[in-house]
Amino acid sequence: MVCSDDKNVSSMCQRFPVPSFQMKLFFFVLCYKICVYIYIFFSINKVCVFQSLDYDSSENQLFLEEERRMSYLGFRCLEISRWVICGLIGFLTGLIACCIDIAVEKLAGVKYFVVKQNIEKFTEVGGLSISLILWAVLNSSLVMVGAITVAFIEPIAAGSGIPQIKCYLNGVKIPRVVRLKTLVVKVFGVICSVAGGLAVGKEGPMIHSGAVVAAGVSQGRSTSLKKDFKIFEYFRRDTEKRDFVSAGAAAGVSAAFGAPVGGVLFSLEEGASFWNQMLTWRIFFASMISTFTLNFFLSIYNNKPGDLSSPGLINFGRFESDSVAYNFYEIPLFIVMGAIGGLLGALFNKLNYWLTIFRIRYVHRPCLQVMEAMLVAAVTATVSFSMIYFSNDCQPLGPDQSEDYQLQLFCADGEYNSMATTFFNTPERSVRSLFHNPPGSYNPGTLGMFTVTYFFLACWTYGLAVSAGVFIPSLLIGAAWGRLFGILLPTVTIWADPGKYALIGAAAQLGGIVRMTLSLTVIMVEATGNVTYGLPIMLVLMTAKIVGDYFVEGLYDIHIKLQSVPFLHWEAPATSHWLTAREVMGAPVICFNRLEKVGTIVDILSNTSTNHNGFPVVVPVAPGKICGLILRSQLIVLLKHKVFVELARSRLTQRKLQLKDFRDAYPRFPPIQSIHVSQDERDCMMDLSEFMNPTPYTVPQETSLPRVFKLFRALGLRHLVVVDHDNRVVGLVTRKDLARYHLGKHGLEELQLAQT
Amino acid sequence: MVCSDDKNVSSMCQRFPVPSFQMKLFFFVLCYKICVYIYIFFSINKVCVFQSLDYDSSENQLFLEEERRMSYLGFRCLEISRWVICGLIGFLTGLIACCIDIAVEKLAGVKYFVVKQNIEKFTEVGGLSISLILWAVLNSSLVMVGAITVAFIEPIAAGSGIPQIKCYLNGVKIPRVVRLKTLVVKVFGVICSVAGGLAVGKEGPMIHSGAVVAAGVSQGRSTSLKKDFKIFEYFRRDTEKRDFVSAGAAAGVSAAFGAPVGGVLFSLEEGASFWNQMLTWRIFFASMISTFTLNFFLSIYNNKPGDLSSPGLINFGRFESDSVAYNFYEIPLFIVMGAIGGLLGALFNKLNYWLTIFRIRYVHRPCLQVMEAMLVAAVTATVSFSMIYFSNDCQPLGPDQSEDYQLQLFCADGEYNSMATTFFNTPERSVRSLFHNPPGSYNPGTLGMFTVTYFFLACWTYGLAVSAGVFIPSLLIGAAWGRLFGILLPTVTIWADPGKYALIGAAAQLGGIVRMTLSLTVIMVEATGNVTYGLPIMLVLMTAKIVGDYFVEGLYDIHIKLQSVPFLHWEAPATSHWLTAREVMGAPVICFNRLEKVGTIVDILSNTSTNHNGFPVVVPVAPGKICGLILRSQLIVLLKHKVFVELARSRLTQRKLQLKDFRDAYPRFPPIQSIHVSQDERDCMMDLSEFMNPTPYTVPQETSLPRVFKLFRALGLRHLVVVDHDNRVVGLVTRKDLARYHLGKHGLEELQLAQT
Repeated sequence: MVCSDDKNVSSMCQRFPVPSFQMKLFFFVLCYKICVYIYIFFSINKVCVFQSLDYDSSENQLFLEEERRMSYLGFRCLEISRWVICGLIGFLTGLIACCIDIAVEKLAGVKYFVVKQNIEKFTEVGGLSISLILWAVLNSSLVMVGAITVAFIEPIAAGSGIPQIKCYLNGVKIPRVVRLKTLVVKVFGVICSVAGGLAVGKEGPMIHSGAVVAAGVSQGRSTSLKKDFKIFEYFRRDTEKRDFVSAGAAAGVSAAFGAPVGGVLFSLEEGASFWNQMLTWRIFFASMISTFTLNFFLSIYNNKPGDLSSPGLINFGRFESDSVAYNFYEIPLFIVMGAIGGLLGALFNKLNYWLTIFRIRYVHRPCLQVMEAMLVAAVTATVSFSMIYFSNDCQPLGPDQSEDYQLQLFCADGEYNSMATTFFNTPERSVRSLFHNPPGSYNPGTLGMFTVTYFFLACWTYGLAVSAGVFIPSLLIGAAWGRLFGILLPTVTIWADPGKYALIGAAAQLGGIVRMTLSLTVIMVEATGNVTYGLPIMLVLMTAKIVGDYFVEGLYDIHIKLQSVPFLHWEAPATSHWLTAREVMGAPVICFNRLEKVGTIVDILSNTSTNHNGFPVVVPVAPGKICGLILRSQLIVLLKHKVFVELARSRLTQRKLQLKDFRDAYPRFPPIQSIHVSQDERDCMMDLSEFMNPTPYTVPQETSLPRVFKLFRALGLRHLVVVDHDNRVVGLVTRKDLARYHLGKHGLEELQLAQT
Repeated sequence: MVCSDDKNVSSMCQRFPVPSFQMKLFFFVLCYKICVYIYIFFSINKVCVFQSLDYDSSENQLFLEEERRMSYLGFRCLEISRWVICGLIGFLTGLIACCIDIAVEKLAGVKYFVVKQNIEKFTEVGGLSISLILWAVLNSSLVMVGAITVAFIEPIAAGSGIPQIKCYLNGVKIPRVVRLKTLVVKVFGVICSVAGGLAVGKEGPMIHSGAVVAAGVSQGRSTSLKKDFKIFEYFRRDTEKRDFVSAGAAAGVSAAFGAPVGGVLFSLEEGASFWNQMLTWRIFFASMISTFTLNFFLSIYNNKPGDLSSPGLINFGRFESDSVAYNFYEIPLFIVMGAIGGLLGALFNKLNYWLTIFRIRYVHRPCLQVMEAMLVAAVTATVSFSMIYFSNDCQPLGPDQSEDYQLQLFCADGEYNSMATTFFNTPERSVRSLFHNPPGSYNPGTLGMFTVTYFFLACWTYGLAVSAGVFIPSLLIGAAWGRLFGILLPTVTIWADPGKYALIGAAAQLGGIVRMTLSLTVIMVEATGNVTYGLPIMLVLMTAKIVGDYFVEGLYDIHIKLQSVPFLHWEAPATSHWLTAREVMGAPVICFNRLEKVGTIVDILSNTSTNHNGFPVVVPVAPGKICGLILRSQLIVLLKHKVFVELARSRLTQRKLQLKDFRDAYPRFPPIQSIHVSQDERDCMMDLSEFMNPTPYTVPQETSLPRVFKLFRALGLRHLVVVDHDNRVVGLVTRKDLARYHLGKHGLEELQLAQT
């Protein structure tokens, strides 16, 4: 049955408010953009057909009956289970972080030891090219293993995973993003890529790992392992799962940076829209447990049980806690550094954007991806080696030098090669050296060369088919140019510490690339363990964001957009008040009767051209009048269990369908093709009243887009029914309908999006 | 016109899930509670008739036309104005904090100097009772001035103002809470009460002050001063104002504790429900500017321009930043301290609850209130004096003692009276002494006595008709027993520092009283300037909250409840799924026709027995079918401007009513009684179509209470129309209808609330 409506969208394009003097430029840019988007859309459409998640519970009769049956004590037990799950999430995330940390340290330690031995051997006798080859081969083989796992087994595990988690929390279901297999590949991949010497960090993937842990633990079963523990069944729906996934992401941040408050803020800033106090406290709890677990096990591993100095994967080291650490007069300098960070960040993002388009076009086959990753690994080793080789920045070995892999190379005895402290090291250690090595440890030339080369290496690396994060490379680039900035300043006594400028530069660069502010401030403050630098860090991050946003979006947003994900931002575009629900909605809508023929349902569900996921249910006597909303997944479960009116009558003993049956099928509902319905059964009827959501949210046709958007976003809806004055269904608004409007530089624009 | 509906609520009470074995107890408690609430309701009903605020914009034709006319550049300008306003809010809040700080320091300095001189004079010659009288008189007169201002000029300025701001952000309009007069009285009052030696802090009132500044600045005018700057007119509505008020509250916290991130989190944890990234950044900006301004001016005042050591009103002093500051084995101890804090906090709250009921009953006349305040001031001075007098805890003057008002009293030369460092001092300084004085500065007896007396003094003081906060007294009590706890522990080397335990105790006590977790953690961390203690503080706050919540609610919630404010919590009570919109809504609803007679409108608005604020507008041809929602305030503006159909026809030149007319009248719309409508005009018609909100949110009657609640809370609604299947109005849900359901210890309970 089809509820038709006269929908007039043809005149829409004419209403764009175009400044007339920019007409030509505008059309040129528009055409170009449309071409790019259409092209991207078609080129990746085959892999990315995104589903939406439903963060609004379907309050059907079954659900309400269960809720009403439950006693106050029952709700208390549920509440306690939520806390227990959050504790488990934190514990497991911390444990994973611990494993990653130890594995990377061990592997990298062995690698650097071997290479160092080799270099020392050949420095004397000549023939350092053998060392170079050894280094490059070691790097490439490690990266190859990681890249093969990712590219062939689970491509979704590539990258940092933060864009994917952002999408998940926003309500977009990225296929396979929270599966156990993804977690295993991610963890294994990140160990290989970091140990393989790529310009990557192990912090971003922790966030993804935490989210996967959360999605797994909270469901009390593993579909991959076919193991159901029969616990936490109540939480088997999108709303509850999302809450736990935000806790997992927070726990990941917390373990990565030792920043529990920063983790909570990350989850909130990047994900959740509805702020709920109780949920926030649970997230906070998970974060605390996570950093605590990591610290506990690392302290045991380091033979210093009870020591609290390693709350995170990255440790910025101790900054002297001096309340006059900086001066009011330095604030303009910080703002300048923020602006530089914003500019460099925008450049990074733009380069990476072009590179990603290139990759989507030409490097989409797994074996090509593995080869590219190996190439990058080899080039990284070669560039690093040449930089070290041609550098003549020798520094005397101080008494308190604690570098693990110092290279003497061609320096005199009692001296070491300064370039090697940044290149011949894991990125985390390099960051720490830049922050804390005493003034004079680096020549300006060394820092400049390092910044430039590492900038391009990191930019090339992000987006490879390896699992790796961009936080640490950004910090490292920023720390290098920040320290350079500090050195080049006229040396007034109070400004003497270049480590401070390295910290500010690191914040500026990271802010310029990822464009977070509040959460990043807290993360940086927690990672330095010092509140004194809070204010400059805030200023720098805000400046970097403002400057960067002028040119191009943040790195994560770019990647989300490149995958044409229907991502909902915080608010509808400002100039969209002239659009109403009538123009935005999808129409005509396929509706079902409250008592519907099985054949009709099967036919509609099997129709691949529409592929709808939600169907308004209407009253048969007053055509088109809405009385509920039913989801594809619910219909599939009903068909699978053959809940037909005729069968119920004939077989009186048949078990009544329960909420448990829906929960057992969640979240991997079988496709309609796998359900066999005989010709006789096609003539049966299905009564949807008990299973549909009888009170879906509706809006009148005249509602403006911002109002629709607000309702949709605040409640995390998947379908919003548009009705006329008689409560008849005239359209259906989905995520895709709202996400395609976008405020470009020339007013409101419409995007091409992957199908939802 | 009345849309009637059969509403069946008579059977509601029978459905409460009562455990049968507790029947008698339950009824006893219920009767008692109902008596208390009804009594409170009637006793304070005359002053507290709370209006609701409307955080959902009325998208009527005028509004939509304005939005559609506005260009992209226009929206950019608005966005920039928002940032400018937030900057101004931060600046002014910082300035006010600076004034308060300097005034209190000066006044208290003079007072303590005079008293100290006097005591020193009389210690030798005997007759210290004269010193006592001098002290008590000085205190009482300062407090008297403050109390008179508050009690006679602006009673709403009493207390910390945090409960009021929580209500405001929740959507309840407390009369006069954000007026200029309130601000002036608040600032003056807090100076008097802190200088008057009461057991109060100046931090809580800063939050209220920030909120008032925000409400004033964002409107671009002062109604009290009758001055309209003709700027920021766009922001003259509840939604925008709320956003700025949250920024103001955050700026207040930021200035009070030097905690910009804590300020943002306070605003979010205590207030906002919908998390918007851009808004959060603006709030953050306001907070930064606020602490910055305060620091800047204080550094100039202290003749140390450029010094960054005083970012807040309270300064916890520098804790040594040692990463092994505490040990894993101490964590159980911290949890025990958290539990003690929770218990003591619950005791404090319960005592204060009884005291407040007593005050509502017997101390409601202003002169009585002033006398009580003076009595408390005199008693505080007497108790302090006796404690100091009878204490024989003499400590040697160390070389680095920086106490300003040290009393020697009966101690030997080169020694000072240890009790006097806590009692003969402003509370802020006492807290700092407890945190930082070296081990051995206090006898256990001194600390014990101090804790007990200060506990009762602070409890008695909170709720007086003076403007004062509870943060600092709580910290002080906690610091005292925390230090005592630290001293009484078996003295192992690593545990030697009692200052650490004072900090943990302070956190525990404050958490036990106010029950904040995330924001308080961050505030404490920022105030100590040291992240090391983050984890123990979190643990302690969470334990204190869990333990405290078992007995009684937080102090602010108690005061909100005692005023029977229709406060909406985060979620509907868990066991309320059996209630539907039909049972919750108010019915019958008074509706207007789209074209309505002026006389009818005037009569309905004048009806004081109903006093409704929102009216559904219905289509005349299909009776009861909803087509919009109009507010009392809008109707009043229409009546005032005589927007009648007949007049518009006769006077063609008449200016069309614009959004500006509504904004000019906001927020103090005149009462209906002040609007004169002649007998002829009563027969005219009014066309509401242009002014009503044509797309109000509606729900069907069968919607469950949690679902209604979620919609209402997430969107900050004031009215939610309940419709039947034909879109006919059958009821109206307001804040009061939702707020009265409450999860007590015996299942769902219904509260008596003040009228909305």
